[in-house]
Amino acid sequence: MTDSKKVRRTSGKRERLAAAAAQVLHAQGVAPTTLADIAAAAEVPVGNVYYYFKTKDELVEAAIDAHAQTLRGLITALDELPTPEERLKALLSGWVQQRELTAQYGCPTGTLASELDKRADGLDRSIAAVMRVLLDWAEGQFTQLGRADARELAVALIAAYQGISLLTNTFRDPELMATEVRRLERWIDSLTEGPATGDDDARE
Amino acid sequence: MTDSKKVRRTSGKRERLAAAAAQVLHAQGVAPTTLADIAAAAEVPVGNVYYYFKTKDELVEAAIDAHAQTLRGLITALDELPTPEERLKALLSGWVQQRELTAQYGCPTGTLASELDKRADGLDRSIAAVMRVLLDWAEGQFTQLGRADARELAVALIAAYQGISLLTNTFRDPELMATEVRRLERWIDSLTEGPATGDDDARE
Repeated sequence: MTDSKKVRRTSGKRERLAAAAAQVLHAQGVAPTTLADIAAAAEVPVGNVYYYFKTKDELVEAAIDAHAQTLRGLITALDELPTPEERLKALLSGWVQQRELTAQYGCPTGTLASELDKRADGLDRSIAAVMRVLLDWAEGQFTQLGRADARELAVALIAAYQGISLLTNTFRDPELMATEVRRLERWIDSLTEGPATGDDDARE
Repeated sequence: MTDSKKVRRTSGKRERLAAAAAQVLHAQGVAPTTLADIAAAAEVPVGNVYYYFKTKDELVEAAIDAHAQTLRGLITALDELPTPEERLKALLSGWVQQRELTAQYGCPTGTLASELDKRADGLDRSIAAVMRVLLDWAEGQFTQLGRADARELAVALIAAYQGISLLTNTFRDPELMATEVRRLERWIDSLTEGPATGDDDARE
């Protein structure tokens, strides 16, 4: 979620380390990453890291917090838009903008979840909590569209994003994301055209 | 893709190690797994492993081959069914049957792809080749349904599966898979109801 190679030095060391952790874990995954990798990306001497974070897992937790903060910022920006259709389509548009990075490393939260979900030590629940925020927000948009099946549609939308991120990454093909997003845009249009009940699912 | 805790001792040691690798990598991920973990699951003395596989990456490659073989077996079985609708729905039905395992560890090929896609050492292309086999097969089914947009629909279907596998795993909730599969079944029905062109996408 952070594009620059090096995290800006203007923020505090703790914040820089958390942002660098999010970035390095996205590029490399959790298991192969060392505290030294994160310290180098944050331009913080490795000896200083222990002052802020005692273990790698504490840095993973900080990276998850950084993702949560980015997501809150995104939702605040989306909520400025007047209608649920526009808000959902702006979310989709952000996914397309990130497609080159996704082709390289996958979705930052999705790939982190995939790796942490093999564990059951609390970090798997922390990343689930971040994903639930986006799911709840999307459900709210479909509810405002008058859909009785808003939760199911929200799950379908976020699943479509996570899945196409994985395929975009696996086949190193950013156009897969662009094509799928155009399909999802038509799908959202189709949801607002018909009678707004939970019974016309064949249209989805 | 292998359900039993221990791989059956009836097959040869190489095959047992490959099947054990697929199983252990699914449960633990690649990075934290050692040759000793795989040897133990295969009930092969760790000293014997080197006779068959010199490095962990060779065992990862063997696990990918095991997934490819499982997939070929699945496709052969699906192809026995008379219509593309039945074949696609049988594929979906298999996903629902695996939902408890998916809630625990995610999709075996998807989570392996997610982890290997952070690398660019050839193993990422091996797992992409496996996923392409399923994608090509699904495209063939949609083509037989008379769809001009068969490739796009195949990508959407496999993305939906990969995404809902991730959510099922992240939220440890097998019912997410069951609900999404019911939605995908209605979606497949809707594709066969209308005029079979690429232009009626709003129905999808």
